[in-house]
Amino acid sequence: MPSLRTALLQTAGRPGSVAGNLTVLDEAAGRAADAGAGLLVCPEMFLTGYALGDAVPGLAEPADGPGAMAVAEIAVRHGLAVLYGYPERDGAADTGSQGGGRIFNAAQLIGPDGTRLANYRKTHLFGDFEQKWFTPGEHPVVQAEFAGLRLGVMICYDVEFPENVRAHALAGTDLLLVPTALMRPFHFVAESLVPVRAFENQMYVAYANRTGEEGEFEFVGLSCLAGPDGATRARAGRGEELIVGEIDAGLLDASREANPYLRDRRPDLYTSLT
Amino acid sequence: MPSLRTALLQTAGRPGSVAGNLTVLDEAAGRAADAGAGLLVCPEMFLTGYALGDAVPGLAEPADGPGAMAVAEIAVRHGLAVLYGYPERDGAADTGSQGGGRIFNAAQLIGPDGTRLANYRKTHLFGDFEQKWFTPGEHPVVQAEFAGLRLGVMICYDVEFPENVRAHALAGTDLLLVPTALMRPFHFVAESLVPVRAFENQMYVAYANRTGEEGEFEFVGLSCLAGPDGATRARAGRGEELIVGEIDAGLLDASREANPYLRDRRPDLYTSLT
Repeated sequence: MPSLRTALLQTAGRPGSVAGNLTVLDEAAGRAADAGAGLLVCPEMFLTGYALGDAVPGLAEPADGPGAMAVAEIAVRHGLAVLYGYPERDGAADTGSQGGGRIFNAAQLIGPDGTRLANYRKTHLFGDFEQKWFTPGEHPVVQAEFAGLRLGVMICYDVEFPENVRAHALAGTDLLLVPTALMRPFHFVAESLVPVRAFENQMYVAYANRTGEEGEFEFVGLSCLAGPDGATRARAGRGEELIVGEIDAGLLDASREANPYLRDRRPDLYTSLT
Repeated sequence: MPSLRTALLQTAGRPGSVAGNLTVLDEAAGRAADAGAGLLVCPEMFLTGYALGDAVPGLAEPADGPGAMAVAEIAVRHGLAVLYGYPERDGAADTGSQGGGRIFNAAQLIGPDGTRLANYRKTHLFGDFEQKWFTPGEHPVVQAEFAGLRLGVMICYDVEFPENVRAHALAGTDLLLVPTALMRPFHFVAESLVPVRAFENQMYVAYANRTGEEGEFEFVGLSCLAGPDGATRARAGRGEELIVGEIDAGLLDASREANPYLRDRRPDLYTSLT
């Protein structure tokens, strides 16, 4: 049975400094690798900081930009996959140019060999700051195969919509990676909602939050790795922390057999949702 | 602003004895009325007991059968609405006969004037026992207006499917009544999933469970009234208990403004669910 030790980096990072955040990542990736992790999940907008305001356009870069190359070097150096959030400038990945004016709140998964495995653009933007600067993504389910598991990606507010996570379950996601920037007073989301998402969809959810303060926002930490049985495998406090937990495909199989939610669904009754 | 004090009866009842359960109800309705409640929510299959086995057909009755009339008398006597679970025999409500062979796991809401306000047939049957004896219902959203609020009804396993509760939110349910027979080892549902349903859908959820043992089942109690802010207003322990909490329409309005999940949904991205 496949298994994957997963590390979650809870940090305030160095808001506004890509170089500073790459240093934080390099150090954390070393510790995660030492702990036996094959995957490190970083928070939303980890590469740049979250509350950037007018600095968003200047810090945005394409999915294959210099930040991505630097993260790939770190992934290769420490031999693990890295999922990180960043502001993505559209177009350059395909055209080589700086693209148009669209910027996405994105998260990218880079493999231990430096390959870009998946790139997701946040579909449900939260609040005035995000809605001012970002274009919402249009692809609800982005996945990658890794270590014998099907990984999915979404970002922060996305996970609060049960429809989103259900779509991943129906598409076979085993482990959902959720970089986030959860702030006061929404600690209930980290404490209760995330484990329920894992249980009702019979998957693991890795929810990696920011900590500290940026402008008006005070991030609440409480990153967690929740399992398909509803049990939380690892849980951070409010401060800087690296937590580690195991993804066990055998437990996934057993839990799905014991909790056949996907089999017992009645899609014909849910038509009002779409 | 409308408000409604709601009582939840957590009891083992008198399995197999309708007369015994009506006595339990009469006593509980008196206590609920003394506590100022305008609504009393009883567990799944309260009228008869849950694990009836071969006795299901003999105890099933139409929605306007003798059990309903007795509950209506109790509702009138104590001046409150009553929601109770029972095995419903199809057809008789319309034809006056004992109807066909179909039996539903149902819940009925009777007003303080004895009027039958709503009757719901469980759409998601749980496990072998229910699937052997009951026909699944075909109407996902059953509602009634009461005390200035829109009440919805579902039963036990139904609430574990996020799609079901979302359909109620989209239809404007303010307070979802959920008679249940939650058993070991599923305490996570009562403790965590139910408050999350209330929060993610911005409604109140009244989850009234059985306690004690019947056959192979050990019911876990833990009935609760959860609010749209995720806070649990009232929570029972494992044994017999009557709990009471307030439904506050003003809090509903404020919470919906602060947590605009229904506004921020993107139905075009959820098509795989139906």
